[in-house]
Amino acid sequence: MKPECLQVTGSFKYRGARSALSALDPAILARGVIAFSSGNHAQGVAQAARDFRVPAVIIMPSDAPRLKLDNTRALGAEVVTYDRATGDRDAIGAEIAEARGLTLIKPFDEPLVIAGQGTVGLELAEQCAAIGVYDAEVLIPCGGGGLTSGIAVALHHDAPAMIARPVEPEGFDDVARSLASGKIERNPALTGSICDAIITPSPGHLTFPLMTTYCGSGLAVSDAEALAAMREAFLKLKLVVEPGGAVALAAALFRANELNADTVVAVVSGGNVDPALFTQAIAE
Amino acid sequence: MKPECLQVTGSFKYRGARSALSALDPAILARGVIAFSSGNHAQGVAQAARDFRVPAVIIMPSDAPRLKLDNTRALGAEVVTYDRATGDRDAIGAEIAEARGLTLIKPFDEPLVIAGQGTVGLELAEQCAAIGVYDAEVLIPCGGGGLTSGIAVALHHDAPAMIARPVEPEGFDDVARSLASGKIERNPALTGSICDAIITPSPGHLTFPLMTTYCGSGLAVSDAEALAAMREAFLKLKLVVEPGGAVALAAALFRANELNADTVVAVVSGGNVDPALFTQAIAE
Repeated sequence: MKPECLQVTGSFKYRGARSALSALDPAILARGVIAFSSGNHAQGVAQAARDFRVPAVIIMPSDAPRLKLDNTRALGAEVVTYDRATGDRDAIGAEIAEARGLTLIKPFDEPLVIAGQGTVGLELAEQCAAIGVYDAEVLIPCGGGGLTSGIAVALHHDAPAMIARPVEPEGFDDVARSLASGKIERNPALTGSICDAIITPSPGHLTFPLMTTYCGSGLAVSDAEALAAMREAFLKLKLVVEPGGAVALAAALFRANELNADTVVAVVSGGNVDPALFTQAIAE
Repeated sequence: MKPECLQVTGSFKYRGARSALSALDPAILARGVIAFSSGNHAQGVAQAARDFRVPAVIIMPSDAPRLKLDNTRALGAEVVTYDRATGDRDAIGAEIAEARGLTLIKPFDEPLVIAGQGTVGLELAEQCAAIGVYDAEVLIPCGGGGLTSGIAVALHHDAPAMIARPVEPEGFDDVARSLASGKIERNPALTGSICDAIITPSPGHLTFPLMTTYCGSGLAVSDAEALAAMREAFLKLKLVVEPGGAVALAAALFRANELNADTVVAVVSGGNVDPALFTQAIAE
């Protein structure tokens, strides 16, 4: 397991945000940054902006998990909410960005963000080598593919016998279907899973070719399996995992018949979950 | 923070149990071991016995947390339960031990157990030095004093400017009162706190002189503060912490006026908590 729930801000997203901000021209960085996010990217960008002492505006859906809204504000970001059904988030964001000269930090389809998330893969290669593991399947919760493609590229270079495989929620397996068909496929819906962190319309134009080149086939798990993995993490690992962060662990636990390697690494990508949903997951 | 909830078996107790079993004569070890425990020591001894492939019998109160009973059995130990109010656990244990030739592994008042728990202190000294910290108060959840005295001795040797301080539940602060009076004091009751892991009648005959020599004064927190610390650990640290394991974190968060050092380390000693109680802790 690679527990990114223990990462700063409670998810891997800080890695990519920090990477992207660190590469901006200082004069541009000083004006501040803006991001669209339902939660984990929001916190990652807010924390990175705080590190560099620059302003951050985060455009978030008003129905984002309360914990993620609260934590983003607590990190000092200005949170602007919109209604998912009726609001035009792009228009709202563009107006604010132009008025204040803010730089958009994209959540996944951005080379420096992918590179930042890829540091998970660099660490995995080193940590596995330290215990003599060179050959493994690495299961990765996958939304737009930033984490998956970053890890896949890193493993290709540093641990070429380890293979990255994306894991998605059932019904939202755009990446698995895109990898199977060889072209970018879209999800029919954008709501209907508890795995809010990894529901995206389709793989990115940068992440898809990387995943095509460097990843194995995708897997999908049910919401019930994600909840059961959260419960196992609570009982055995003493880790707080959010639904979207638990899908790779769920695949490792419940989809053994779809796995090939003797050694399986599950990336646990985040732990930002509201108490009510966590309570539901751990109930007997 | 030193998160021993992430230790094998979900608490630091595995360290002391492994230490004690590793030093037994092989012929004696092969006959097996026995322990009395309401939970965490039980799991530590069960895991250590499993490591060495020898039998373990654990005498547990029938009202021990269900998770601890289940996990102890799952580790392959034979669990014998007794009624806290009416049963004579010592008589039950003595009879089984004699009939089978089992060696008793005491939970804290045993040099090799104290030494094993002290490895937390050795690691703390090394990890703090690695980030330039040499001067700190180290707050430690304290029951019988095995962990506290072990850490205190280790710090005295490896990090002499760091000071160990025991933390207990209010109303069960036998160690704090013993340190203040200079003689072994007892708790008036053995039930009435949610911090089941650290409710003991009095400090041990070995642990008390060590704590007198090497520890600072004790602290006590309420059950409500322990629950609030569990909630903070859930929200911010993504760690599952049990009530007794959360008291030092609670002191760090809520008793700043009783602390003296600029740097405070809180040992989080365990994470074996039933879903119902955890749900209560994280409820809004």
